[in-house]
Amino acid sequence: MSLLVVGSVAFDSIETPYGTVDEALGGSASFFACAASYFTRPRLVGAVGEDFPEDHRRLLTTCNIDTSGLVTLKGKTFRWKGRYHQDMNTRDTLEVHLNVFGEFNPVLPEHFRDSTHVFLANGSPVLQAGVLDQVTGPRLVLADTMDLWITNQRRELLQLLPRLDGLLLNDSEARQLTGEDNMVRAGHAVRKLGPKFVVLKKGEHGAMLFSEDGIFVVPAYPSAQVVDPTGAGDSFAGGILGYLDADYSPPPGRLRRGMAYGTVVASLTVEGFGLDRLKNTQRREIDHRLEDYRRMMSF
Amino acid sequence: MSLLVVGSVAFDSIETPYGTVDEALGGSASFFACAASYFTRPRLVGAVGEDFPEDHRRLLTTCNIDTSGLVTLKGKTFRWKGRYHQDMNTRDTLEVHLNVFGEFNPVLPEHFRDSTHVFLANGSPVLQAGVLDQVTGPRLVLADTMDLWITNQRRELLQLLPRLDGLLLNDSEARQLTGEDNMVRAGHAVRKLGPKFVVLKKGEHGAMLFSEDGIFVVPAYPSAQVVDPTGAGDSFAGGILGYLDADYSPPPGRLRRGMAYGTVVASLTVEGFGLDRLKNTQRREIDHRLEDYRRMMSF
Repeated sequence: MSLLVVGSVAFDSIETPYGTVDEALGGSASFFACAASYFTRPRLVGAVGEDFPEDHRRLLTTCNIDTSGLVTLKGKTFRWKGRYHQDMNTRDTLEVHLNVFGEFNPVLPEHFRDSTHVFLANGSPVLQAGVLDQVTGPRLVLADTMDLWITNQRRELLQLLPRLDGLLLNDSEARQLTGEDNMVRAGHAVRKLGPKFVVLKKGEHGAMLFSEDGIFVVPAYPSAQVVDPTGAGDSFAGGILGYLDADYSPPPGRLRRGMAYGTVVASLTVEGFGLDRLKNTQRREIDHRLEDYRRMMSF
Repeated sequence: MSLLVVGSVAFDSIETPYGTVDEALGGSASFFACAASYFTRPRLVGAVGEDFPEDHRRLLTTCNIDTSGLVTLKGKTFRWKGRYHQDMNTRDTLEVHLNVFGEFNPVLPEHFRDSTHVFLANGSPVLQAGVLDQVTGPRLVLADTMDLWITNQRRELLQLLPRLDGLLLNDSEARQLTGEDNMVRAGHAVRKLGPKFVVLKKGEHGAMLFSEDGIFVVPAYPSAQVVDPTGAGDSFAGGILGYLDADYSPPPGRLRRGMAYGTVVASLTVEGFGLDRLKNTQRREIDHRLEDYRRMMSF
């Protein structure tokens, strides 16, 4: 099968209680693709500026990512700067410079159009729909969204939802989208808007899946070394879809296992700044941690 | 075996986004004992004032609770008034009147001293130690605590911890006690202070167990009908110890199953105001929900 991700590639400058990093390689597509690369060879579509170093491109390539959809545009690469609070659950965005990502209008390379699995990383629903139009016969489409689009492009988002297999969003976004404070009711309510399944992320508290199979709940993998939560959500998605793209067993167990893999991969991401930890793992370590995780939940 | 709880019996006046209730029967010992009563016949030690209605005492008695340790003191019953915020995760205490509970110095009835399982509900560590002194040969002692004692009676609390099998506390209390922001490190650090195991509560996000068996993590049971979180923590403890008191299988699986039962029982508590929902269940419903819960977590 074949997995496509369309999203941002960025420079992240991050401050957490455990340290700082300046202009590290980040962005939703980078985290997603790096996470998925332990299961399959993801196809990345994104845009960077002329200041994007060859080293970063090489890093993505050596991570088993097909970067032939990563275009270089005139201008600078997307930059984000943020500071996490002491408890690491909240953060302040200090600077956002969309730069070339602001005018990015993704065009899929011809040989990406047959992708079977698609991740529409956080972006405007109009842009996400435009990407979907270019994929000839996707089997599973998962999209991420955020508060900005729920507020400013609600109509466009509601039009997109029935075209999706899954929607990924966090608890506050689910509340915002549905008006439901209870997360169980919110999850069911999102599903009624069109997607076949809903993955509700709760950060360090894990995630919930709402599907025709009912509710599936997973705690986060309890890591003692959380130093930078940036990219956890996109890594989680990358673990899910990477696994699904490579696994041929029947649903619904498949989606549940994907969520477990996503959880484990995300737990690696947060143990380093940027991609530092995630890029330095192996499928064997991931599988080992998955078994640990299973033991930690069994009774 | 035999299960003892020493704690408060109170009138709770509660306001949540889903309704209000005035002077409902509450208090740590009431919730704990009612939860435990589905597994064993708990022994309750507490104090009420002369205004405590016969109806309330009868409710506890008909719930299969041995109330021969519930004394009536001159004065009024403990009263608490609180208001939950929209998200139900935070609350403001509007009024606290300790009344007779303020001078309560528990004396165990002679026939309670041989209790094998003991829950020291939230109270000063001095009072908790005084109770423990009266139990002749406990097999398993679990204690709850709170921010007040961690701040004001830290020395006394630290002296109590090595006498406990388990300590139950929530995430912010664990942070306060150990200075660790990461919950995994905090849990291990609490255990180093003496208790054989630590149960770290995360409210609607579940709980974690730290023991010689490693880490065990459980999400909360995803209820769509949360109307009043009051008493969830004490019901959780009641489910754990009630189950342990009634189960003779070998550890460590026992403690894990206890946590799962505690989770399920607490999920019933929050579906009604005060004891309304918890008192109206059956062991069969609890077991049924436990199987549901197991399915919701399996992958």
